[in-house]
Amino acid sequence: MPPPPAGQVRVQNLWMSVDPYMRGRMMTRESYVPPFRLGEPLEGGAIGRVDSSACEGFAPGDLVQSMLGWREAFNAPPSALTKVPTTGLPPEALLGVAGLPGLTAFLGVTKVVKLQAGEVVFVSAASGAVGSAACQIAKAAGATVIGSAGGAEKCAFLREIGVDQVVDYKVEKNLAAALAAAAPQGIDAYFDNVGGVHLDAALQSAKPFARFALCGMISQYNQIEGTAIQHMRLVVTKRLRLQGFIVSDDFDMMPQFVDLMAGWVASGAVKIHQTVEHGIENAPAAFLKLFSGGNIGKMLVRVST
Amino acid sequence: MPPPPAGQVRVQNLWMSVDPYMRGRMMTRESYVPPFRLGEPLEGGAIGRVDSSACEGFAPGDLVQSMLGWREAFNAPPSALTKVPTTGLPPEALLGVAGLPGLTAFLGVTKVVKLQAGEVVFVSAASGAVGSAACQIAKAAGATVIGSAGGAEKCAFLREIGVDQVVDYKVEKNLAAALAAAAPQGIDAYFDNVGGVHLDAALQSAKPFARFALCGMISQYNQIEGTAIQHMRLVVTKRLRLQGFIVSDDFDMMPQFVDLMAGWVASGAVKIHQTVEHGIENAPAAFLKLFSGGNIGKMLVRVST
Repeated sequence: MPPPPAGQVRVQNLWMSVDPYMRGRMMTRESYVPPFRLGEPLEGGAIGRVDSSACEGFAPGDLVQSMLGWREAFNAPPSALTKVPTTGLPPEALLGVAGLPGLTAFLGVTKVVKLQAGEVVFVSAASGAVGSAACQIAKAAGATVIGSAGGAEKCAFLREIGVDQVVDYKVEKNLAAALAAAAPQGIDAYFDNVGGVHLDAALQSAKPFARFALCGMISQYNQIEGTAIQHMRLVVTKRLRLQGFIVSDDFDMMPQFVDLMAGWVASGAVKIHQTVEHGIENAPAAFLKLFSGGNIGKMLVRVST
Repeated sequence: MPPPPAGQVRVQNLWMSVDPYMRGRMMTRESYVPPFRLGEPLEGGAIGRVDSSACEGFAPGDLVQSMLGWREAFNAPPSALTKVPTTGLPPEALLGVAGLPGLTAFLGVTKVVKLQAGEVVFVSAASGAVGSAACQIAKAAGATVIGSAGGAEKCAFLREIGVDQVVDYKVEKNLAAALAAAAPQGIDAYFDNVGGVHLDAALQSAKPFARFALCGMISQYNQIEGTAIQHMRLVVTKRLRLQGFIVSDDFDMMPQFVDLMAGWVASGAVKIHQTVEHGIENAPAAFLKLFSGGNIGKMLVRVST
């Protein structure tokens, strides 16, 4: 990289974020973000360090967040950068529990589902970046949390972060029966990251008037035809509310959320857990692991130190 | 029928209501009303006339509404009866547009979907008792209404009651494409009486933040396995809200609704349309016609005159 031109800074990326929603930008169907462009790097969140500045207000050593193409280093004007706030958190947490995945979890649990103390919530893909944040925010709200994940290691992780009942969907032949056993009184709320049979199971275990926050459907992203949902009838008979939401509609809540999350992490209510791949050359593999279940907590690529 | 014992009145039923929700009481699966009991008459709404009274406050000629077993005449105490209010409406309208189907339509359009003037709403099974009321209430609210029904006669009826765009689902091979053509800008709201492919089509035509009132799923009531819903993914990407509701949760709104509806009928904003079968012996056939598309507007059985 050449030194930055006047009015720009040079940034060495430290961490790159790898997120399931990026899958949706790899096809041309209608969605809430435009598709990636052929021949250009994938765009994604990153945390980097200024190593040379030709711009007032930035000095070498400053940590900055960006949303540019996947890269190790770049020159950019301040308009493309956000200074990392002082939070007491490790900076990469701003890509995870204190970043978009965390805010997504927070919105689903509070704004969409309005979870109350004493309620029972089911979280699917509970060991992922959003799911594990949702579980811990729900526990902090005083709820009983049932989480689903695939495999013994992830299930052990869920118990470690305080999830009350763990469903291993790779072991359970009948997910609906497993959820019903984990929540014999039914569920008041469902935080859906998976769709498909998970959503169908949640419909069956829902109490009357249960609320569903539909956040993502990772089981569906690599399918042309969606998985059949068999139990939509129950939305009527149980008066359920199913609501989709997207974090970008509430970006303005980020500053207050970061403060809140910093407090939760400081108090131990929320634990930071991430899966780290090293080197930009491993970014595509890291991305693919999101769909084969290769991450616990937030998936990150460590670009440099 | 013997004369009424002390404290009761004798009622000759005039009209019996035939409703799709009764199908749900013919199996033992979980629902919001208990199943019918074997060996006992089906319960349902009826309007009758007192012909003999042994009870203060009731006199021969009084019109009363009841929710007892299907029958031509009966003795009952006042606790099982509601006097038909003076509304200027024909009394049987209290089983249709000014009764539970009308209140159901009203709740879906106003409370659940909160339809606004200038919005586009899609109503499925639009020629039925609930659907035709929903279409007319939506028109009265200033919305553009797209209605689906099966067959030329029903479609003509929809045009007659002011529906802006009519989709004949028996003619259209691709319902999603037909709805997209009828609503080129998409729909703001969907009033679902059908489920299945109708719901899937509505998901595809929904604008971002569209609201769906899930009122019934008549396409599903005779199925053991529900029809696959393929496009649930769109609930997330479009931030849709799908909400089930049941009229019995808002029975307390009935008196004010009846007044409102009486005004709409008087002004011509809502037209009363019903399909009438004659004689209690034809009640089972009338019920079955709900599922083969044999009614336009409210299905009633005329028991006596």
